[in-house]
Amino acid sequence: MINVRIFVTYKESVFDPQGETITEAIHSLGHDEVKQVHVGKFFDVQVDSSNKTVEKTIAEISEQLLVNFNLETYRYEIMEEA
Amino acid sequence: MINVRIFVTYKESVFDPQGETITEAIHSLGHDEVKQVHVGKFFDVQVDSSNKTVEKTIAEISEQLLVNFNLETYRYEIMEEA
Repeated sequence: MINVRIFVTYKESVFDPQGETITEAIHSLGHDEVKQVHVGKFFDVQVDSSNKTVEKTIAEISEQLLVNFNLETYRYEIMEEA
Repeated sequence: MINVRIFVTYKESVFDPQGETITEAIHSLGHDEVKQVHVGKFFDVQVDSSNKTVEKTIAEISEQLLVNFNLETYRYEIMEEA
């Protein structure tokens, strides 16, 4: 069993309104030392496969389901192998 | 400037309906090798402070804004110092 964490973020060119709003809210709490916040999602995926085939699985489920490639981009980390 | 990634997840005891739904959708794509999916959020926070004070900032903004401690828990990683 392989545990993979897939990170999905807005592309650099895409405005992140949630991040902007959170930055403003943090400033209103008095934390002006916080300069920028970007928001993202992650998916912790448990895959019953080998290291060789897990990359194909991750690419397929990201492309077909998890990521909106118009606005978002993704990367992943293999967390552990059990 | 310190870059910190704050990970927010549901507590273990809390049902993750979005994760369940995504797991079913992945199965309907034919990827039965995916056994479980958990969904989380992350916040990439750029803080203008020293390593000593950044922990206090992160704890305060997490507790006062980013995390719902009834359902969620958080951890963070210091990504890089610039």
